[in-house]
Amino acid sequence: VEKLARTKVAIDPLLARRWSPRAFSSRQPGADHVDSLLEAARWAPSCFNAQPWRFVVARADEPERHARVASLLSDKNRRWAAAAPVLMVTIARRDFDNGKPNAYAWHDVGLAMGNLLTQATSLGLVVHQMAGFDKDRARVELALPDGYDPVAMVAIGFPGDPAELPDDLREREAAPRVRKPLDELVLRVPSP
Amino acid sequence: VEKLARTKVAIDPLLARRWSPRAFSSRQPGADHVDSLLEAARWAPSCFNAQPWRFVVARADEPERHARVASLLSDKNRRWAAAAPVLMVTIARRDFDNGKPNAYAWHDVGLAMGNLLTQATSLGLVVHQMAGFDKDRARVELALPDGYDPVAMVAIGFPGDPAELPDDLREREAAPRVRKPLDELVLRVPSP
Repeated sequence: VEKLARTKVAIDPLLARRWSPRAFSSRQPGADHVDSLLEAARWAPSCFNAQPWRFVVARADEPERHARVASLLSDKNRRWAAAAPVLMVTIARRDFDNGKPNAYAWHDVGLAMGNLLTQATSLGLVVHQMAGFDKDRARVELALPDGYDPVAMVAIGFPGDPAELPDDLREREAAPRVRKPLDELVLRVPSP
Repeated sequence: VEKLARTKVAIDPLLARRWSPRAFSSRQPGADHVDSLLEAARWAPSCFNAQPWRFVVARADEPERHARVASLLSDKNRRWAAAAPVLMVTIARRDFDNGKPNAYAWHDVGLAMGNLLTQATSLGLVVHQMAGFDKDRARVELALPDGYDPVAMVAIGFPGDPAELPDDLREREAAPRVRKPLDELVLRVPSP
């Protein structure tokens, strides 16, 4: 499946090639792959360089941990995402070191994930982020300290064969990628 | 100034080379540059593909609009960022189309900016995001509809000469880039 973004103007292939599949190969990414993804996330910019991003990583070759993290997924996502050989949970630290709330905590987790996605594409990996998981149970299972929010779950691996997906998911896998046109996204500054 | 991230493991040069400078060249990026940045942002992933990101763009070759947007910057940021030939304001739509709140609105603006940053590096541009600006006045000046949050201001251009910065900023421009070590960012899953 080649899901190149149908861009109006050229963008870097690392961005144009990125998409969020549901089919993953069983091939286990190595520790070096995972470290490279985390290293990319680490170098993202953040408000006051607070680096509010945290990560939980579970690999299929540590089956007990992988199963525990997979159990947090919503039923709908578990159908396909439990087969991803690497699962992550992204976490935001809500406050700055001085105790004041960091309004950019989730935003900056998004920036770090932007870096991670590009690095994944660079390594031939695919990534699918999910909002559908049990956040209350994630706080308990992952023993998150006060002031930390579970943000997203992340399925990571090498591209798989969509033919192995259930029918309904295989159809979604083949659907074209769609985005709003730029003129809906760019707001005009009114005349003074 | 070469500010390559001192990575522990290799990451793509488009990520390692990115940093947030205060010195910008007066060379005006073309409309094609700006379109390419926005196109990259447009193809980011988002929760339910809601694409909550919006952008205001002001170019120095439209001086009246550029000055109005620059006037939103905090005094501290205006010292250097007003010289950036492209200024943006990033904006988050807080709700989904169905009216329910989108907890991922700011997170997904961060994802879109992650794409924009990589595309900027790919084009030889540099980008510096800022939290320091007058958000209340931004809502008025930019006539933001209800349900839209101003998130960050963004200075964009080609790299400039740090020698032209005031002394205190020139020192900060030469400082090494620092990040928390990975073992602080990766949380261990406790044993059950």
